[in-house]
Amino acid sequence: MENTINEQTTAQVMTPEQFLEQYQGHRRLTRKVIESFPEKEFFNYSIGGMRPFSEMVKELLAIAVPGLTEIVTGNTSEFDENRDYGDTKAQFLEKWDQDTVEINKLWKQLSIARFQEVIKLFGQYEGTVLSNLLYFVDNEIHHRGQGYVYLRALDIEPPFFYDRS
Amino acid sequence: MENTINEQTTAQVMTPEQFLEQYQGHRRLTRKVIESFPEKEFFNYSIGGMRPFSEMVKELLAIAVPGLTEIVTGNTSEFDENRDYGDTKAQFLEKWDQDTVEINKLWKQLSIARFQEVIKLFGQYEGTVLSNLLYFVDNEIHHRGQGYVYLRALDIEPPFFYDRS
Repeated sequence: MENTINEQTTAQVMTPEQFLEQYQGHRRLTRKVIESFPEKEFFNYSIGGMRPFSEMVKELLAIAVPGLTEIVTGNTSEFDENRDYGDTKAQFLEKWDQDTVEINKLWKQLSIARFQEVIKLFGQYEGTVLSNLLYFVDNEIHHRGQGYVYLRALDIEPPFFYDRS
Repeated sequence: MENTINEQTTAQVMTPEQFLEQYQGHRRLTRKVIESFPEKEFFNYSIGGMRPFSEMVKELLAIAVPGLTEIVTGNTSEFDENRDYGDTKAQFLEKWDQDTVEINKLWKQLSIARFQEVIKLFGQYEGTVLSNLLYFVDNEIHHRGQGYVYLRALDIEPPFFYDRS
């Protein structure tokens, strides 16, 4: 390594742009999972007393744009996973796509210096901006993995996990 | 911001230590999920033709230490998710704990400059070290989420998703 000092000060484990692409890649996969559900089962099907996948998606929508808006603006809002997005898959997908655009806009307002800042998201989740954003993605992967089991139980082939196109 | 230039060059979205803690936190949660399964169902129970949770754990064990060893040493190895770890939960947990220690050791040998390096893991997965390591964690969350559905279907309360202790 010819330029060790410079590398040490500028090297990044993950840039903000890479984090956004990681998040949006997962959101594209979740969108495919929503599309894979039959209309009725998206709203009604569940296993072991868990929520239908539509309810999990409501949680994801309640976290993404509201959470990121709060991080960017500093204005605390209430966490509400019971918002009404309609009663069709098409309406959920429309909202999903609107939020994709909104997340990209909000992310541009998030400077790299903010990621290590400690916040209290939705007035209750204390941690760094980083740990909160990691939670957004992790929580989506977690619930989407549950959606995969619903699809398999419905004899539907889910999208490949590695397909983020 | 009084020291903008310095902040811009030294600010990190995520440090290597934070990435390790994120990974090990998820591994601690996965360990709790393994513990939550009844002995027999860990090896036999499944939904929708999917693998039992023990088989998913074999995949996770095949990725973590072998993958990280390859990243650190540069020696390509074959991906093998069919290794034999025994036929009891206790044996799987013992291997899990050995790998926890091993991951910590290997991580110390991973300099920050390596994360953006492009590699071909297990001779087939091309991408940055970062994207490969993100996949390790994402894939674990994904399959563990499936394990949660198995537990719920077995009428067993899974650990809290946010509990990484």
